[in-house]
Amino acid sequence: MLPLEVLERAQAEMLDYGNSGMSVMELSHTSPEFIGILKGAEDALRKLMGISGNYKILFMPGGASVQFSAIPMNLLSSHRCADYVVSGRLSKKACDEAKKFGDIVIAASSGGASPPYSAVPNVKRSDFRPDADYVHICYNNMVYGTKFHDLPDTGSIPLVADMTSCICSEPIDITKFGLIYAGADVNIGPAGLTIVIVRNDLLGGARKDTPKVLDYKTLADCESVYEGCPAWGIYLAKLTFEWMLSIGGLEEMKRRNERKASLLYDYLDGQGQSYYTSPVDKKCRSMMNIVFHTPDGELDKIFVEEAEKVGLVNLGGHASVGGICASLYNSMPYEGVERLVKFMKDFVKEYPNPKMKD
Amino acid sequence: MLPLEVLERAQAEMLDYGNSGMSVMELSHTSPEFIGILKGAEDALRKLMGISGNYKILFMPGGASVQFSAIPMNLLSSHRCADYVVSGRLSKKACDEAKKFGDIVIAASSGGASPPYSAVPNVKRSDFRPDADYVHICYNNMVYGTKFHDLPDTGSIPLVADMTSCICSEPIDITKFGLIYAGADVNIGPAGLTIVIVRNDLLGGARKDTPKVLDYKTLADCESVYEGCPAWGIYLAKLTFEWMLSIGGLEEMKRRNERKASLLYDYLDGQGQSYYTSPVDKKCRSMMNIVFHTPDGELDKIFVEEAEKVGLVNLGGHASVGGICASLYNSMPYEGVERLVKFMKDFVKEYPNPKMKD
Repeated sequence: MLPLEVLERAQAEMLDYGNSGMSVMELSHTSPEFIGILKGAEDALRKLMGISGNYKILFMPGGASVQFSAIPMNLLSSHRCADYVVSGRLSKKACDEAKKFGDIVIAASSGGASPPYSAVPNVKRSDFRPDADYVHICYNNMVYGTKFHDLPDTGSIPLVADMTSCICSEPIDITKFGLIYAGADVNIGPAGLTIVIVRNDLLGGARKDTPKVLDYKTLADCESVYEGCPAWGIYLAKLTFEWMLSIGGLEEMKRRNERKASLLYDYLDGQGQSYYTSPVDKKCRSMMNIVFHTPDGELDKIFVEEAEKVGLVNLGGHASVGGICASLYNSMPYEGVERLVKFMKDFVKEYPNPKMKD
Repeated sequence: MLPLEVLERAQAEMLDYGNSGMSVMELSHTSPEFIGILKGAEDALRKLMGISGNYKILFMPGGASVQFSAIPMNLLSSHRCADYVVSGRLSKKACDEAKKFGDIVIAASSGGASPPYSAVPNVKRSDFRPDADYVHICYNNMVYGTKFHDLPDTGSIPLVADMTSCICSEPIDITKFGLIYAGADVNIGPAGLTIVIVRNDLLGGARKDTPKVLDYKTLADCESVYEGCPAWGIYLAKLTFEWMLSIGGLEEMKRRNERKASLLYDYLDGQGQSYYTSPVDKKCRSMMNIVFHTPDGELDKIFVEEAEKVGLVNLGGHASVGGICASLYNSMPYEGVERLVKFMKDFVKEYPNPKMKD
């Protein structure tokens, strides 16, 4: 979802951006109008997330999975080895892709939890190889509804985090990370753009056969102005960052997101718990993705279908896990969660628990 | 430029696509609505360009320059060598990038022409190594205003063509090519999407360390449905393809483009030739990009500035060559070229040729 204010602004400016007589989609990537949009997006994101000049912000093509390759190609620069923490489907994919490029090991995994990935792994500093070029985590796991509430202690090893499903949902301490990346399509803008925030000292070590468009140093040097850069996505990102600043920044975003998540979790832990179950370890609960089940798999499917009929869409859990996953991303209003909880209460009455028939 | 009809349709559907209650930018890449858009774009392009089932159509992230890397990574599969025809800036860049991945030679170049690249190279079959995995050309050179009116005879070696600046401008015989690629940002839609049309037998030979998102076989197998795929660009592409079909397809597109180009070339070759010069070999003239000069470089700059004041924008030649480049892409209406020619005539009176002062 995108904020309605952002979509309406984009709609209004669609045929004529800033009196240029052109749509943003028609601007040359070297035009002053587009450079202005790019700088505006970068400035707003720096302000929003508190990003110092010690980090570069790169606007890259494609989704987060492009970075599954780009990260090892760029960062396996010293010892050609890196450690991955596997906490779900995407961190596993990132790890598998990295194996093409160097000596990659899974330092910790919660795949053995019951059910699998219902928590993030417990990791300690000694789990990491001292010569690892980086440690990779997925900060928020959308399929499993988990999140790292405490970051792994990696000492001096740069910590790399996929934040696709939680970027800008709350303030973070950027200095804890060597690199953060996020596909724009969850909290920022349309698919086809990924934001990479990378510490300056990690630039310049890419392997020689890194495709030029995936080379962080090249992108940093041209300040993300390159042929085919996703201008429309960057424009939407700028509008979204500015919208977040206008409502009070990430402190306010966090307050709103906590309020939404509490509404649903409180119901799941209270009145709803005789019917709905949440498989997730409470210490690892995500604020963005809330996973739960009805009493059985057939009812889960009915739940998703019936919800869709009343406009509550995209509630089906990922094909690999089933169940229900409510994604309360930044643009989801509180009223949307209220409607969901009301629907859940009605569903309990409509479809009584078959295991408690008598 | 994008067709006004396309922009208006996108604007109207921006907040609610097909009664889904969501913007196209908010659709999941696995939703039936998005799959419908993707299939619609593919079907329309197949019809428009006459593409048989012997070719796959891939919708890839980023601009054409992503393919500068992806092509050698995927196609240097047998002898790990390929031959490049260099006819300008972008074909040189494509060639330089390919050198990271195999044994690449420049089979022919028009860099030695006077002025450089004012024609496309004359190439014959014997210029190519018989064991080359492919031959690469840039079909239309936007900076230099040239085009291959006759395709190089490569025998059984697959011909790979960058068609970014001319795709869908006229009918082509797709069977002459092993692979065609085009950044969407010229004739198709917004930047950040590239269309790759690849013959089935060329799939499956990618080197093992090809990033997954650049592996043609992986993309063909998932039918371009992947995380982070540029949905908004694909949607615009679909609208543009359908618009072209609605006006009569590529035969009509060619008729319109020839009519526009003739208007400008006829003026340059006739009344305008005492003032304006075109450096391009007439046999190699592009229908999309028309390059010309005023009597001197200072006047060229004034021309571009004055033109912009009356809404004739983006006329400056590329920084590497200077001069003037009028890009008459598909969406440029005939009236736009009429306005340009009128401006050119007025400019001659306003700024007489300083070399003919007396």
